[in-house]
Amino acid sequence: MRSAITALLVLLSVVASAASQADEVWILRTDLWRSPAFSTLRVHEDASRLSGTLDGDAIEGKVEKDWLSIASTDKQGRVSRYRLQRMGASVTGTADLPDPNDAMRRATHAVTGWRVPDRHGPPRTIDYHPTDYSNTWDADRHPVLVVWPGDTIHTTTIDSGGVDENGKTQALFGNPQTGPFFVAGAEPGDTLVVHIRRLRLNRDYADSLDTVVGRALGMSLASGAATLGKPVRWMLDREKGLARPQGATGALADFAVPVKPMLGGLAVAPGFGMPPISTGDTARFGGNMDFNEVIEGNTVYLPVQQPGALLYMGDAHALQGDGETSQYALETSMDVTVTVDVIHGHSVSMPRVESPSQIMVLGQAGSLDEALKFASTGMIQWLQQDYGMTLSQAAQVMGSAVHFTVANLAGRSVGVAAKLDKSLLPAPRRE
Amino acid sequence: MRSAITALLVLLSVVASAASQADEVWILRTDLWRSPAFSTLRVHEDASRLSGTLDGDAIEGKVEKDWLSIASTDKQGRVSRYRLQRMGASVTGTADLPDPNDAMRRATHAVTGWRVPDRHGPPRTIDYHPTDYSNTWDADRHPVLVVWPGDTIHTTTIDSGGVDENGKTQALFGNPQTGPFFVAGAEPGDTLVVHIRRLRLNRDYADSLDTVVGRALGMSLASGAATLGKPVRWMLDREKGLARPQGATGALADFAVPVKPMLGGLAVAPGFGMPPISTGDTARFGGNMDFNEVIEGNTVYLPVQQPGALLYMGDAHALQGDGETSQYALETSMDVTVTVDVIHGHSVSMPRVESPSQIMVLGQAGSLDEALKFASTGMIQWLQQDYGMTLSQAAQVMGSAVHFTVANLAGRSVGVAAKLDKSLLPAPRRE
Amino acid sequence: MRSAITALLVLLSVVASAASQADEVWILRTDLWRSPAFSTLRVHEDASRLSGTLDGDAIEGKVEKDWLSIASTDKQGRVSRYRLQRMGASVTGTADLPDPNDAMRRATHAVTGWRVPDRHGPPRTIDYHPTDYSNTWDADRHPVLVVWPGDTIHTTTIDSGGVDENGKTQALFGNPQTGPFFVAGAEPGDTLVVHIRRLRLNRDYADSLDTVVGRALGMSLASGAATLGKPVRWMLDREKGLARPQGATGALADFAVPVKPMLGGLAVAPGFGMPPISTGDTARFGGNMDFNEVIEGNTVYLPVQQPGALLYMGDAHALQGDGETSQYALETSMDVTVTVDVIHGHSVSMPRVESPSQIMVLGQAGSLDEALKFASTGMIQWLQQDYGMTLSQAAQVMGSAVHFTVANLAGRSVGVAAKLDKSLLPAPRRE
Amino acid sequence: MRSAITALLVLLSVVASAASQADEVWILRTDLWRSPAFSTLRVHEDASRLSGTLDGDAIEGKVEKDWLSIASTDKQGRVSRYRLQRMGASVTGTADLPDPNDAMRRATHAVTGWRVPDRHGPPRTIDYHPTDYSNTWDADRHPVLVVWPGDTIHTTTIDSGGVDENGKTQALFGNPQTGPFFVAGAEPGDTLVVHIRRLRLNRDYADSLDTVVGRALGMSLASGAATLGKPVRWMLDREKGLARPQGATGALADFAVPVKPMLGGLAVAPGFGMPPISTGDTARFGGNMDFNEVIEGNTVYLPVQQPGALLYMGDAHALQGDGETSQYALETSMDVTVTVDVIHGHSVSMPRVESPSQIMVLGQAGSLDEALKFASTGMIQWLQQDYGMTLSQAAQVMGSAVHFTVANLAGRSVGVAAKLDKSLLPAPRRE
Repeated sequence: MRSAITALLVLLSVVASAASQADEVWILRTDLWRSPAFSTLRVHEDASRLSGTLDGDAIEGKVEKDWLSIASTDKQGRVSRYRLQRMGASVTGTADLPDPNDAMRRATHAVTGWRVPDRHGPPRTIDYHPTDYSNTWDADRHPVLVVWPGDTIHTTTIDSGGVDENGKTQALFGNPQTGPFFVAGAEPGDTLVVHIRRLRLNRDYADSLDTVVGRALGMSLASGAATLGKPVRWMLDREKGLARPQGATGALADFAVPVKPMLGGLAVAPGFGMPPISTGDTARFGGNMDFNEVIEGNTVYLPVQQPGALLYMGDAHALQGDGETSQYALETSMDVTVTVDVIHGHSVSMPRVESPSQIMVLGQAGSLDEALKFASTGMIQWLQQDYGMTLSQAAQVMGSAVHFTVANLAGRSVGVAAKLDKSLLPAPRRE
Repeated sequence: MRSAITALLVLLSVVASAASQADEVWILRTDLWRSPAFSTLRVHEDASRLSGTLDGDAIEGKVEKDWLSIASTDKQGRVSRYRLQRMGASVTGTADLPDPNDAMRRATHAVTGWRVPDRHGPPRTIDYHPTDYSNTWDADRHPVLVVWPGDTIHTTTIDSGGVDENGKTQALFGNPQTGPFFVAGAEPGDTLVVHIRRLRLNRDYADSLDTVVGRALGMSLASGAATLGKPVRWMLDREKGLARPQGATGALADFAVPVKPMLGGLAVAPGFGMPPISTGDTARFGGNMDFNEVIEGNTVYLPVQQPGALLYMGDAHALQGDGETSQYALETSMDVTVTVDVIHGHSVSMPRVESPSQIMVLGQAGSLDEALKFASTGMIQWLQQDYGMTLSQAAQVMGSAVHFTVANLAGRSVGVAAKLDKSLLPAPRRE
Repeated sequence: MRSAITALLVLLSVVASAASQADEVWILRTDLWRSPAFSTLRVHEDASRLSGTLDGDAIEGKVEKDWLSIASTDKQGRVSRYRLQRMGASVTGTADLPDPNDAMRRATHAVTGWRVPDRHGPPRTIDYHPTDYSNTWDADRHPVLVVWPGDTIHTTTIDSGGVDENGKTQALFGNPQTGPFFVAGAEPGDTLVVHIRRLRLNRDYADSLDTVVGRALGMSLASGAATLGKPVRWMLDREKGLARPQGATGALADFAVPVKPMLGGLAVAPGFGMPPISTGDTARFGGNMDFNEVIEGNTVYLPVQQPGALLYMGDAHALQGDGETSQYALETSMDVTVTVDVIHGHSVSMPRVESPSQIMVLGQAGSLDEALKFASTGMIQWLQQDYGMTLSQAAQVMGSAVHFTVANLAGRSVGVAAKLDKSLLPAPRRE
Repeated sequence: MRSAITALLVLLSVVASAASQADEVWILRTDLWRSPAFSTLRVHEDASRLSGTLDGDAIEGKVEKDWLSIASTDKQGRVSRYRLQRMGASVTGTADLPDPNDAMRRATHAVTGWRVPDRHGPPRTIDYHPTDYSNTWDADRHPVLVVWPGDTIHTTTIDSGGVDENGKTQALFGNPQTGPFFVAGAEPGDTLVVHIRRLRLNRDYADSLDTVVGRALGMSLASGAATLGKPVRWMLDREKGLARPQGATGALADFAVPVKPMLGGLAVAPGFGMPPISTGDTARFGGNMDFNEVIEGNTVYLPVQQPGALLYMGDAHALQGDGETSQYALETSMDVTVTVDVIHGHSVSMPRVESPSQIMVLGQAGSLDEALKFASTGMIQWLQQDYGMTLSQAAQVMGSAVHFTVANLAGRSVGVAAKLDKSLLPAPRRE
């Protein structure tokens, strides 16, 4: 998770890519009773014979004209058969699959697919100018861009109300996201690494509210609370890096808070069997985390759920107090540059963030009590996995050094972060 | 709450003390069906006639030999009558009081009392060498020392297991406390101010465990957790200010954490109708807060519940991660110097802490969700009371600048702290 | 909510329907940056001039050939303009709408629509044989049937794993639902009334697990819990109405539980701006409530969010303990008969259930503490709205007579039900 | 837990009692740095030599005049030495004990003690007329009565405000309790069985409030809630068994709720190291449970923490809705008859209640989520211990048959009850 590891991963990716250069990689979409299942088909064509893998299971098959016939056998010995017509970079056809609840039955399902292009050359930086946005974390939305581990994406996000840097509405409110970006080679069970290289304001205002979310509002404030919820526009002084509520008077006449641009939303697509999820919501694979450590210079680790990970980003904030207690933080559009990497065969159970000085785990759940339990447990697992600690040792480190902060109070789930100073820890070593 | 205010308070106290120099102040203990009620009697003797107040209600009475006869009338017009025999610095007698549930009935209750000595001279520093300790926050324990606002107390605390700086058990385990200290003039409705002037280690080890409290332990760690709970002794390098687990190997061979001495326990006595409370427990008037910001250089504000406040302190930690996830922090004995002050007629709804750079409110409750709600609400009230903010303004400050950390996970109640940087706030002004 | 009211509502519906017989009712779908918004257009054609309403706002317009030109003005004075081509029972065209974030801008959006057929005759019973199922509560799924208030639907549901009464998989696992049913005249702000007339087992087995959900599992059971989670098939004796775990021995050799068939899933579609929601999830408009009082003979009240309500039902259980602590209840397929009604202009804040003897409110949230607060608050509101009680009176009824049970522990949200015996209450009167 | 077992236990007790008739049983109170520790000394005197046990550890010693010299050795080999002067039914002296934190040190502590009288004859019924009451669950309060397993106590309780059946205040508000009753032979690790034989109203009114506790009050009711909290007197029609709010009008004009007398408070004394606990509070050994199944005809099981258990009871309610949402239930005085039993060597982890038709476990914690987890876990343990079920079998029973209700919302801890119908269960057999 550090530069040496990154370099190694890039190298390995290049090697792997070289080895399979002759192969084709396809992403298949099988319609299972109107719910999509995505699979990665790696196929090697030798004369008319096909070999390779389908989601890791060995396949065999043959080609006749533009038709591919493939059979794959899973670990339980169940056979799946595909008939696919190849037309340029897409396929269409059928899958003949066993009934998941009755081994004696089979059924036929429609299949479509697209070919992942081959990689050319070293990591590169790609500018992507979004033209539409997604209001769901959606595995069934076609990628806007295919990138490879080591590649850098430079793009923009619009604000949570769908407004761009020019003040024009480009999407429906509700945290519309830029993406998804398909990271070639990322598979379920891997970890997607998102290095936030640059995160900068690109307009001079942000929109917020003067409210206090219910989770932060005691009954003794209830009577006054009825008057809250009014829009507050904040002026962003990009030169000095300060945000001020427009027209503030009295006790706030001189109130100015240093900006700390962050991505409220960052996620990979949900896994098989999960429908699209509102971009107002969170999950263990990221989402509307609203965590004020998702900032320039930090790195986010997310557990891949679908082929290509399908990275989304959006809902940037000029700054945010812990918990986003005003329901809307300082919502604004943003200029974003990220570099993506993949750690193969190693999954994280929930989002992790690494800063130059700390490692952090974000627990998200329906109550702070549950969220903290996740964060603490996730941090202990990190210490065990990457720092070679026993549970007893991890317990001693936590008891003497852990920090817990509250990331998010404004969503259906709340977030609690466990943090440790890297200066206290030994050098990490991946198990 | 800053030096100017402190000076003013000291001045006012001196003036008040001067004005009432001729008066006597008595603390009465009325036995109400075996539960004690404490009252402050301020009595002025003019010839044989008595005037003054009893808990703020006007009294009238007379003296005959060593017998005082007093009648006080409360705001509902109910009359209480006392017959007290004065013997030196103590009184004993009876109270004839109305039945609280039936205005037609009265009952007689036993009364004892002690006289608060007059104050002499300017604020001073007093050394107190404890000889026994309290395992409860107890309003019915006789003060070990009477001090006045502005006075400084220099004393020691023993560790949570009752062991002193020489390794000798001086009290039963369970956070035995030094005190209580009676702060003359502090009354229910006031705020006790505790400036922690100095807090230093006075021995070379601390005791802890290698455990993870249930609130921080996910089910996925459950199987391993059965092996946890073993004692861990930490060696304290007082010169370098570092703590190291004794005999650590492997990933912890070089583990050393900077010490940050703190008082886990700090409380005033519980109010009328509340029995003594275990020093393992917390309440809105402080208690076993286990908050790692109760450190040298910081100031703690607690809501006074009884005449004289009755300040207790103990359960010091050489350092503690957020939440005291190891159940025991680095438990050790400590050298303590505090200065006490009183803010009259102004109560805080829960403990507040002020550092050179931050103001903090500690919410404590049965779940993190409730504790956070208290902390947030308490901070908003502080902004309204002392910084002249409207609720709308406080909401904007919170949304853009609040920090939430977890103070304590190891007790029956948990603690969440809301924090704000003083650099962002206007100058405070008491309402 | 009783038969007299029902009859009145039916009567009013018939009258309303008669009055507008000459009018056309269209459901428009406007594509707002790829998110759909649904509207009800009621249009009266007089010569070539159009009048009527769009979601309650007055419209004016004209017809030229098969093109309708319509302008509606909302309460803020913003004008929306539609150009729609009518082709039989469908329309297609565009909407020219103001930018929601900038009054100076406008944008054009695609529109499609379908015509709600006119009603013929008295309430009727309709058999519906499902051919596909939905794994989301989805406002953007075309209705499988249009019904009117007073109509009765007779249909079937498949089990949570997608298996029908013949053991054949008909849908992906995850509580696939039958529906949606469009209830003509139901609009956001109304309440949908679902009388469960009949709910009967239609096969001889149900599938469950031998597990204990995390929310019901203390740490002291953790070690043994690793062995749980195995499938358990229950045999359903439909004649005797008993369920028995297949092959049970030892302490369960004679274990037989009376069946109590229930619908785990019952919901209307989510409202504007909300994407489809997993049928494993719940919301204030119903969902995977898993409440064992959604049974034959009871009536469920749900808050309508979209034109036509769009009623879904599924995930039936042969029986279920409180909370569905085994993660899967006794999952089975079912024969279902419901009658639908609409209470116009009256919304419920969360699901309500009425049995012959009790009224019940179901609170659903991320913790039991929040869910109970919702249930209690919802019940108090019911007492205020329909029973003419003051808040003080409702407080006395609750304190002396409320029952709280736990409906659901197995989902992301949990459910708590507040219940009151109707025998204690005065006759209801709609405010 | 059934009559056969009860009979057996009684028999065993009698046998045990017969066997030790020549012995003396003493309850020693050792002052450990002002915290009391209670021990059971069973001493057999043979000539001047003493043998027997001290809390189960073997002792040896001798008698000289009225001085007993005793040494006991615990399982770790640590030796405790006592010098006690016997004066009639009491002893006084010293204990010389090892320092708990340093094996090389010893310290001397003061000891007092009283002799448990010998039992005479078969179980009997004893009338106890209380003269004072306890506002704490207190191990250090002298027993008001010594009883033996099988004995029946007939007594009275006063209401939570301290008012007796004649309207006279007899104790301070806050649930003053009758007791404690010393149950001879009950030791830590045993279970106290309290059969509630009779529980009857003994006056014609109860006092309550028209409030809604914060845990049941949503923010949407907050504005109105400020007007709540007024006293409500309920008239009790003892003949018809109905309670009616005095002077009710409007929607409550005919409101009458059947009474269901219950004990809100029932507890044994807290264990070693725990100070007295407010009778407003709860613990795993009972307390202010406010559970509306602690009624006539039911049996309560509590885990014994101190020699003699020290049973307290009070805070009776004429009736109470689930959760005591009005903060005060229908508080009244009561006539109480209970029979006590002891199950030796078998402890329950939290309170259990048994009715003629159900077994119930009461989980109590700082949140409903935690309380439910305790209740569920406690019920599973019951099924394992007494019904011979495997964890898998218990999981199936819970999933298909458990009921969860909310016992208490009005205290610092809340209570959730898990219930199972005895008709579904096999015959119990104690492991």
